[in-house]
Amino acid sequence: MNGLMMDVPLTITSIMQHAEKVNGDVEIVSVTGDNPRHRYTYRDAFRRTRQLANAIAGWGLASGDRIATLAWNDYRHFETYYASACSGYVCHTINPRLFPEQVAYIINHAEDQYVFLDPDFLPLVEGVAAECPGVKGWVILTTEERMPQTSLPNAICYESLVASGGETFVWPQLDENAACALCYTSGTTGNPKGVLYSHRSTMLHAYATMMPDALGLSSRDVVLPIVPMFHVNAWGNPYACPMAGAKIVFPGSKMGDGATLAALINEEGVTLSAGVPTVWLGLLAHLKQSGERVESLQRIIVGGAACPLSVMEDFDRYGVESRVGWGMTEMSPLGSVNASTASREEVGEEKFAKLRLKAGRPIFGVEMKIVDDEGGEQPWDGVAFGSLKVRGPWVCSSYFKLDGSDAHAEEGWFETGDVATIDPDGYMAITDRTKDVIKSGGEWISSIDVENVATDHPKVAEAAVIGHFHPKWSERPLLVVVRNADGEDLTAEEMLAWFDGKIAKWWTPEAVEFVEELPHTATGKLQKVALREKFKDYAFPQ
Amino acid sequence: MNGLMMDVPLTITSIMQHAEKVNGDVEIVSVTGDNPRHRYTYRDAFRRTRQLANAIAGWGLASGDRIATLAWNDYRHFETYYASACSGYVCHTINPRLFPEQVAYIINHAEDQYVFLDPDFLPLVEGVAAECPGVKGWVILTTEERMPQTSLPNAICYESLVASGGETFVWPQLDENAACALCYTSGTTGNPKGVLYSHRSTMLHAYATMMPDALGLSSRDVVLPIVPMFHVNAWGNPYACPMAGAKIVFPGSKMGDGATLAALINEEGVTLSAGVPTVWLGLLAHLKQSGERVESLQRIIVGGAACPLSVMEDFDRYGVESRVGWGMTEMSPLGSVNASTASREEVGEEKFAKLRLKAGRPIFGVEMKIVDDEGGEQPWDGVAFGSLKVRGPWVCSSYFKLDGSDAHAEEGWFETGDVATIDPDGYMAITDRTKDVIKSGGEWISSIDVENVATDHPKVAEAAVIGHFHPKWSERPLLVVVRNADGEDLTAEEMLAWFDGKIAKWWTPEAVEFVEELPHTATGKLQKVALREKFKDYAFPQ
Repeated sequence: MNGLMMDVPLTITSIMQHAEKVNGDVEIVSVTGDNPRHRYTYRDAFRRTRQLANAIAGWGLASGDRIATLAWNDYRHFETYYASACSGYVCHTINPRLFPEQVAYIINHAEDQYVFLDPDFLPLVEGVAAECPGVKGWVILTTEERMPQTSLPNAICYESLVASGGETFVWPQLDENAACALCYTSGTTGNPKGVLYSHRSTMLHAYATMMPDALGLSSRDVVLPIVPMFHVNAWGNPYACPMAGAKIVFPGSKMGDGATLAALINEEGVTLSAGVPTVWLGLLAHLKQSGERVESLQRIIVGGAACPLSVMEDFDRYGVESRVGWGMTEMSPLGSVNASTASREEVGEEKFAKLRLKAGRPIFGVEMKIVDDEGGEQPWDGVAFGSLKVRGPWVCSSYFKLDGSDAHAEEGWFETGDVATIDPDGYMAITDRTKDVIKSGGEWISSIDVENVATDHPKVAEAAVIGHFHPKWSERPLLVVVRNADGEDLTAEEMLAWFDGKIAKWWTPEAVEFVEELPHTATGKLQKVALREKFKDYAFPQ
Repeated sequence: MNGLMMDVPLTITSIMQHAEKVNGDVEIVSVTGDNPRHRYTYRDAFRRTRQLANAIAGWGLASGDRIATLAWNDYRHFETYYASACSGYVCHTINPRLFPEQVAYIINHAEDQYVFLDPDFLPLVEGVAAECPGVKGWVILTTEERMPQTSLPNAICYESLVASGGETFVWPQLDENAACALCYTSGTTGNPKGVLYSHRSTMLHAYATMMPDALGLSSRDVVLPIVPMFHVNAWGNPYACPMAGAKIVFPGSKMGDGATLAALINEEGVTLSAGVPTVWLGLLAHLKQSGERVESLQRIIVGGAACPLSVMEDFDRYGVESRVGWGMTEMSPLGSVNASTASREEVGEEKFAKLRLKAGRPIFGVEMKIVDDEGGEQPWDGVAFGSLKVRGPWVCSSYFKLDGSDAHAEEGWFETGDVATIDPDGYMAITDRTKDVIKSGGEWISSIDVENVATDHPKVAEAAVIGHFHPKWSERPLLVVVRNADGEDLTAEEMLAWFDGKIAKWWTPEAVEFVEELPHTATGKLQKVALREKFKDYAFPQ
């Protein structure tokens, strides 16, 4: 027997309509290429969104067609999000940091009909346009006066496009399972894979991020989303902010510019911000150098990579609460947030520092489990670790146009590719990548934990641990070390002795090899695949 | 084209499972008839819930069958909520304050299979059991030792029932639209009508109440739900608390006992509470008399009836933020919360006082509109008023087994029966009931606004305004006054002169009649129906 409740679909159209009526006067401030402080209100934003929807309705696209963006965080990108998705199309955000051939690949794979781009990305796009014959038009996010010279066929001025549309638009009634957004993962191996979000998943994710133990957005907040709108929908901020009635401050292309970020925070009264550790290092460096403070800022969410403790401690000194968040493109992205339930006073400084660096507790809506090689669930004791699997209404079920993709070795659960522990209070900590964990005699060794001990040695510049074939234990850890300037005399014996008492005896590396440098990706990540290749013929000493 | 996101249904089963894994150690404290401070954890609660589910599985009920409760807020009632709903049955909460004949009516109308009751309600239930032949068993919420003597056929001891069930239970996979709970409105006219909540509506409502501008529950909160679990699921607290990992303090039968409430707040560190104005008056009276304080308490939600300003100002002095909430049984119940976006400092004391008494801004998920007699939407200017209509995924579409019910004069919108204004910032204020508003020459007059001016007169004890036939204006306001001890000499002329400059000239009552007393319901509400009946032959002076 069903309940007798209204059948109202969960669509982001309703976010737009709510914000316009209830939070119409709330501001959106943007840094753009043509204006260092563009400001208007949600009411203005959604009036222009209707104009844009009217204009693109004339393009004759079919429901579900993809409209791509290559753009910074600003109001025009925001309008494009809503105009495309609420018209029944899919807003495909492209990461401009990808290699040009990847950009061309995903435009073609997604079958993008139109591409909206910031003038900054014109050189990139001009370079790939010839390889993207399916694109019917290229919309430049600027005014008629500032339209650049371009070799692009069918270049369209965004502001002229908006101006051409009437202010009245009847939004279509959409199914809540309809796709609304598409984002490709920037995987290190193989082609990028597309994650196709639905209206329902986006809205439930936005509700979840609003919870006080997640981002905790309210109408009193002023939010600076430094996490890009071209990657996983800026962690849902463009949906959660209008839902809450929070003022938005979009940093445009100045996401890595500490001085601009500090100015935005102080001039606009920013209370909450979200970004990757690199962004925070930039902001902190600027604050230290300038002597400025960030009085209005109450809390930041740090995600995308492991957060150094020093970043959190620096923010402590500025009176800003920092929370670690964890997620993936495949998870919309939020899976866990570390809004610590324990206080420094209760648990002591050392335990507190360890706890706050963990990935946090699963937010309601995301189920987690950790399993061993046989799929057996591991206990939540903070010690046992296993492959992390997740499920929930905003977790992807398969990749776009990749029906045979192996994301789901187990039906109904998504393999994160991470190895994690979970403690009795639900705090999850990533200990390794599944492909990097070392399987020694049926037990798992975390390569990251061993590396952390190694790099603490005063003579070590960098260290990597890989699993390597061993005739008895099947795999044993091989430590590969780059000595630092003081470390010319560092020997294998001295290095291995360093582990005594610091980790379990059987976790101690089987051997040490010294090298001049370790292989890295373009973005600075250690390439363990290349390292394993380099040592593939290595044999442990008998 | 649909998104490629997991099809995970929104069920309250997932709340239970999340809380057990992530918040297992969090406490639930209860005042019960057999223990002034029962305490255990979510882990204990859901283990016992599985035992209960196993036990009732043996009853052979069909999916969707109703299990009723007549119980105070405590842990046994909490277990019954989850065991029944997550097993696929419907938890039908009965309000023990209804007249016995109404209780019998709704047990029969709902076709309740089993009834769980607190020993306190045994006399009530024994009085109606003979009229409820469909009930197969009466479960007394107590231990074997404390089982009362009873004339009830098939009386079952709750604790023995729980003990009979194994601790392992595989919860069924439920459709998110399946019914989970049933609550009858206590309408003043006609029989009570049943509102049938679904898993989906309950979960979305719980998400919405978690938002910082609603209840804003977090894992740091300790929640005292004084609003009864026998009425609209205690405003969703029994779902939102485990979702957030908040500690719950259930007051049992002591909901109206200021001393017990103060003791619970101070002993358990309560941070957040929700209740009707009467409850707060009781708590405040106790605090004033005892000199106690409520240091841990951060905020309260006041709903169910208009909140006197004095209550909010008293709580200001205790350092407690008070928020008005508004809703209805038909709305799960929450529709709006007044988490004021304006501060006293910004807008001044007088405007702030007026603003904070309003019903608040619609929470995201509830759409509102105000319409005139022809269904024309009225502006959100804070002045124009109209019939308030709402829609959303937790608003009822029709009443249980009342397909022809007239709740939806307009397709897709629920008629609240209230008349309201909404200001440009979205603050809604109830100005009258639809049936009480006076329609004078095509314009509407709020009976409540006129009554408020009248009762401000120093010689008036109580006042009521009703619309009464007028040959020219179709209706005009008739003021009916009870003079107070100082008011024996109050004349109609003096009374009418009092309105000069206080309200619009044409809102001033057409005439005044003095009476010894006004008709009230058992719960103290003014009965305007009876008043209109009394004056039906009245004629305004020419």
